Amino acid sequence: MDLEILRHSASHIMAAAVKRLFPSAKLGIGPSISDGFYYDFDIADKTLTPQDLLKIEKQMKKIISANLPFERIEMKKAEAKKLLKKDKETYKLELLEGIPDETVSFYKCGDFIDLCRGPHLKSTGELKAFKLLSIAGAYWRGIEKNPMLQRIYGTAFETDTELKTHTTRLEEALKRDHRKLGPELDLFRIYHEEAGPGLVFYHPKGAELRFIIEDFLRREHKRRGYQNVIIPHIAKMKLWDTSGHTNYYKENMYFLDIDKQKYVLKPMNCPGHILIYKSKLHSYRELPIRYFELGTVYRYERSGVLHGLLRVRGFTQDDAHIFCTEEQLQDELLKVIDFAFEMLKTFGFEYEVDLSTRPDKYAGTEENWKHATNALIAALEAKKQSYNIDEGAGVFYGPKIDIKMKDALGRPWQGPTIQVDFNLPERFDMTYAASDGKKKRPVMIHRVVLGSMERFLGALIENYAGAFPLWLAPVQVELLTIADRHLKYANIVKEALEKEDLRVEISAGSEKIGAKIRSAQKMKIPYMLILGDKEESSNSVAVRSRSKGDIGVQSLEEFIGFLKKEMI
Amino acid sequence: MDLEILRHSASHIMAAAVKRLFPSAKLGIGPSISDGFYYDFDIADKTLTPQDLLKIEKQMKKIISANLPFERIEMKKAEAKKLLKKDKETYKLELLEGIPDETVSFYKCGDFIDLCRGPHLKSTGELKAFKLLSIAGAYWRGIEKNPMLQRIYGTAFETDTELKTHTTRLEEALKRDHRKLGPELDLFRIYHEEAGPGLVFYHPKGAELRFIIEDFLRREHKRRGYQNVIIPHIAKMKLWDTSGHTNYYKENMYFLDIDKQKYVLKPMNCPGHILIYKSKLHSYRELPIRYFELGTVYRYERSGVLHGLLRVRGFTQDDAHIFCTEEQLQDELLKVIDFAFEMLKTFGFEYEVDLSTRPDKYAGTEENWKHATNALIAALEAKKQSYNIDEGAGVFYGPKIDIKMKDALGRPWQGPTIQVDFNLPERFDMTYAASDGKKKRPVMIHRVVLGSMERFLGALIENYAGAFPLWLAPVQVELLTIADRHLKYANIVKEALEKEDLRVEISAGSEKIGAKIRSAQKMKIPYMLILGDKEESSNSVAVRSRSKGDIGVQSLEEFIGFLKKEMI
Repeated sequence: MDLEILRHSASHIMAAAVKRLFPSAKLGIGPSISDGFYYDFDIADKTLTPQDLLKIEKQMKKIISANLPFERIEMKKAEAKKLLKKDKETYKLELLEGIPDETVSFYKCGDFIDLCRGPHLKSTGELKAFKLLSIAGAYWRGIEKNPMLQRIYGTAFETDTELKTHTTRLEEALKRDHRKLGPELDLFRIYHEEAGPGLVFYHPKGAELRFIIEDFLRREHKRRGYQNVIIPHIAKMKLWDTSGHTNYYKENMYFLDIDKQKYVLKPMNCPGHILIYKSKLHSYRELPIRYFELGTVYRYERSGVLHGLLRVRGFTQDDAHIFCTEEQLQDELLKVIDFAFEMLKTFGFEYEVDLSTRPDKYAGTEENWKHATNALIAALEAKKQSYNIDEGAGVFYGPKIDIKMKDALGRPWQGPTIQVDFNLPERFDMTYAASDGKKKRPVMIHRVVLGSMERFLGALIENYAGAFPLWLAPVQVELLTIADRHLKYANIVKEALEKEDLRVEISAGSEKIGAKIRSAQKMKIPYMLILGDKEESSNSVAVRSRSKGDIGVQSLEEFIGFLKKEMI
Repeated sequence: MDLEILRHSASHIMAAAVKRLFPSAKLGIGPSISDGFYYDFDIADKTLTPQDLLKIEKQMKKIISANLPFERIEMKKAEAKKLLKKDKETYKLELLEGIPDETVSFYKCGDFIDLCRGPHLKSTGELKAFKLLSIAGAYWRGIEKNPMLQRIYGTAFETDTELKTHTTRLEEALKRDHRKLGPELDLFRIYHEEAGPGLVFYHPKGAELRFIIEDFLRREHKRRGYQNVIIPHIAKMKLWDTSGHTNYYKENMYFLDIDKQKYVLKPMNCPGHILIYKSKLHSYRELPIRYFELGTVYRYERSGVLHGLLRVRGFTQDDAHIFCTEEQLQDELLKVIDFAFEMLKTFGFEYEVDLSTRPDKYAGTEENWKHATNALIAALEAKKQSYNIDEGAGVFYGPKIDIKMKDALGRPWQGPTIQVDFNLPERFDMTYAASDGKKKRPVMIHRVVLGSMERFLGALIENYAGAFPLWLAPVQVELLTIADRHLKYANIVKEALEKEDLRVEISAGSEKIGAKIRSAQKMKIPYMLILGDKEESSNSVAVRSRSKGDIGVQSLEEFIGFLKKEMI
């Protein structure tokens, strides 16, 4: 059975149920989506609640057991218009006007009829396993000036077993949701009301985690011959005229005025790195030059599409630009691909690869695009790396390799990207002196190996369900004193551990030891050390692991060795 | 003899000389300043050159040897106006209008007469030691809409010896000028034309230096119980309404529009850190809470006042906000003062202390200001630290301690500041639960211990004349190969040194060894290792020090030990 048809039919059955329960409901659209379906409704006098979902499910079951056939009805547009007008389906009327054909189709089951291209199941009885999942607001046609409709999400499968597997996974995903875990573990917050949506504030533990990752990244880049640079967040708009951003990327840019000139809050780091390259003459001997920056950029996104750390308005890329000769291009691409793969493995992700080709709006010549795309394909093939083609998903200045990270639940996350660019070097008239003394144009690679720190942190939280491995945990060891008199010993232990660069916190307070353990466990701290009279007198620690519980008493020295071994 | 009178008279003598040479010159103002004097001229048909300065000096010497007396002449304003009109002294006429008195004074020497309050030397012959230094553009009354005048700077002393000492120091300062050394050592650039004035781009060596300092700072803060946080660069304007910035600081802020709401590019980090504090309830047990961030801020400054790294439009503060109880305030202030002093000593600076009190535009109650000012005074007195009072130079939300760094030439630089603030905690309604369970307001300390990374880097470059001590040098060791065949050995040496976390560069090229040494010396790299056949065969390096020249051949191991010892 085709899952798309099954789910699309499920959305019709849901709409039929909604119309029975709320006759004033007007229909929006009701497609099948990658893991289920939804339908949008305008119900003027009613805000749907989770309780209503149960009622709707019950009504759907009635429609299913009646086993009503899905009938296809074709009619002329004028007739269709009359029918929809009678039913006051104003949204469907709008859709109808957009259909160029003279004849349109409806699908009817029981007393429910809906403008629809189809196809559908034979009858409602074929739907065996379904579940309604959630309610959300959605603007009609996704445009914020339009009315806000009520969207019901659901899913459907061929069998109950499949449905059960899926909903269990959804529950697991919900538990791992970084938007929930982030504030719970006090890693970050987004102060929508006070500061604005899409802008992330890193609290101490989140900042600690970010610096652990950033320091690691900086070392890895240095080891591979990258050089740090730092550029300002604002620059004159004319820099972005040269790069083409004001032409191809304007809707995503923030502008401000300084001394009657237009300035831009940088949406990308490339033009700044190009300015640094151009500040002096370069010889072929110096290439490849690799500039790296943990560069914070700001891009406008409509508030409706913002989503936790995954879709934000400000984020920090682990961004680098490589300037090389055409002869070096292949080798550099291979190095970057290896670098990206190695990073993802370090953080516990699997991956798959997409190749994104020329979009509708693009800068540069067709020849350059072909050249750049071929370079990427050649690199992937040299690595015997399989890939999917994502037609038209490149950036305006060049094609790219997108590496999707796959987390512990097998879900894909947008990760590293690698772009080959022959356009910006031309627009900025970049050159180097070749071995024959002639001026030549370098090729430019734009690349990130984790992506954005925000999105990566979101993926990391969900991958580990917030229980970070020891080397990443913002607090690695929590010291739990049994009574206030053990605080002195706790401070001695803390100092000894910090000397070894371990990250330690003391849970002093007057709570009982059980409460302290529960709270450290809730914060997913890898190790808890319980410190009482016995431990103090023997200069030892009673170790509790987040995953294994009590693992016995160790001398302080043993414990340090034990942690060091785990972090290798 | 009073130096101010001497220099003011020198400026009159210079103006007399200019009028003799360029009779159409109109006079602006001609005061004595801290280390000399200047006079502003409007000479319509003439742009002054350094050559002209020599001519003017020659003419001044004539006026001096004529030993003309300075005569004071008083007259009614109406009469003065007639005189200035006749001489077409339009700028002086404007000044005259601003004088409220009925009688004004002129000073005359020879055929030169000038509206002036005096006093002056008895006669021109008393000026023994003077020198004209430079020409600069200066807007009339410092307002950019006004005409640009030509300013001549000069200096004068009682004796030739004093003059000589001063000009030698000026030459030394000029050699150390970070605006010259920064690009020469390829540390940073400001791309006025392409990106905008006041916005600093760190090239690889400058970024390396900045990260050395930043990593050091982060360790030092961690050691002292500070926690990292990271906040976005933009936030809704209403956050800044609450803090009072839009009321007291508006002219220095950049605004942008997002979704029809006003946003601010942050000029300060405090409101962001306050949001994080306020995200949960705090108990007295948690205080003091110390949030630290290397926070980049943007502040509007008129383009005329921008100056290298010292006065910019974007800069990164080593900023922290401490939230503590009133009882903890004194102790926290003492810790911060110690921290700041220790940092400055580490980087080779002496210092002196100013206390800046309530400005004209201020937020909060007089009582809170008094309270805050007293806390700062008490801390300074507890440390037996002498200080000057800078009346009215506090920030709108609180008084501050300004620590001036003194460099190798004894020049003062703006450095750390420490502010006590009772106002923002009130404006943001911040609280903590006291030991009796009651809600209380924390006190807030704003502090930077180096100041801004930009200004500090500027001071650092000039303090060391670009020859950074080994631990700060972006490149510590330059490897100079005698011939191409030594490149392999150079790479072995490089790897061995990098394993020890040393920063190494290879100067490969085909230049002669002498040229390579000169170029490394020009880049002020602490150590050069010359690598030829002899060194390769004996696994050794021929060491050249930036300051001591050739210091002999060492084994690689010896050399590593030698460097480590220097960095302790």
